[in-house]
Amino acid sequence: MYKLYGDMLSGNCYKVKLLMQFLGIEHEWVHVDILAGETHAEPFLTMNPNAKIPVLSIENNHYLWESNAILNYLAEGSSFIPIDNHEKAQMLQWQFFEQYSHEPYIATARYINKYLGLPADREAEYYGKQEGGHKALAVMEQHLQRHTFFLGEKPTLADISLYAYTHVADEGGFELSKYPGIQRWLKDFERIPGYVTMDRKYG
Amino acid sequence: MYKLYGDMLSGNCYKVKLLMQFLGIEHEWVHVDILAGETHAEPFLTMNPNAKIPVLSIENNHYLWESNAILNYLAEGSSFIPIDNHEKAQMLQWQFFEQYSHEPYIATARYINKYLGLPADREAEYYGKQEGGHKALAVMEQHLQRHTFFLGEKPTLADISLYAYTHVADEGGFELSKYPGIQRWLKDFERIPGYVTMDRKYG
Repeated sequence: MYKLYGDMLSGNCYKVKLLMQFLGIEHEWVHVDILAGETHAEPFLTMNPNAKIPVLSIENNHYLWESNAILNYLAEGSSFIPIDNHEKAQMLQWQFFEQYSHEPYIATARYINKYLGLPADREAEYYGKQEGGHKALAVMEQHLQRHTFFLGEKPTLADISLYAYTHVADEGGFELSKYPGIQRWLKDFERIPGYVTMDRKYG
Repeated sequence: MYKLYGDMLSGNCYKVKLLMQFLGIEHEWVHVDILAGETHAEPFLTMNPNAKIPVLSIENNHYLWESNAILNYLAEGSSFIPIDNHEKAQMLQWQFFEQYSHEPYIATARYINKYLGLPADREAEYYGKQEGGHKALAVMEQHLQRHTFFLGEKPTLADISLYAYTHVADEGGFELSKYPGIQRWLKDFERIPGYVTMDRKYG
């Protein structure tokens, strides 16, 4: 059985939880305390030398890290990965967009605010994340004004990757009321059978 | 015929150039002047609303962006993508690592230094990138001490993605002499048939 090492408040971990629920994949959730430094100590570093959650334990001493790589591994052969090569590449395009142009702004602002309580010495960084976050949301909004999900009528990994931190963007100071396309998409996403909320205890 | 919109000094564009040379894919290179703001104006934004190079033009009004997604599209069915699902996911793992934990430090420091000439108002940002860049290089070094390429004996997209900015890391202030595994890997990479250097004029 798979073991998933993560924190239930992390959007990157929640992505994997969502997919496992959608596909009915049995797994054990192992809580990792990032604020206590567990990711930067052994035995965690043996699993992921890059010291980040989530980590998927596949079998004896085989581990996979990077949330979006884990999604691609678990979703292989399912409807969450398009069969057509061009569509599959577009799905990856949005997943790389999420990690480069979305997560570093929206997830980091949320982390500083929600996990750390917006300490004075990180206020400048927090406010500095707002512009980049809104740029990413504007790119999504433009696309979602014309498409039900990122790849068309059916949800793919692109939607899971982008849903995770977008639906809690307000916790990073990002007001979603001016993005009607995103709000509509969030509601459609939440109707996917198997959907679970983020704040539920996974353990 | 494919058109690739990019700048030959950008590592993200160079990745795609390398793969096209390795696979012998015919294409036209279209230069985009990022310092002149071309990526932030029409008609570029129609191709990529996220305003970044490279962009691959596939056919009439079909475009793909995000360098690593373009690589996955073009390499489909070639030896640069492993067939085994776990190995393919590990390849993606290193590509997501590159975009989240490597490029924002090493490529950005290089950009500030090489493109912008290290202006006084970005010095703090430049020096602030050093720790994160060395963390990424240390993760790579540990892996490359034990493996010829990232996925074993044969090069994959993971190597192309990570080679692009690592081999010019010195232009961002990262001295590679203390990473013997990385230096050995760079030399092995440069022996792949079809290899071209980055500074060659592509047009």
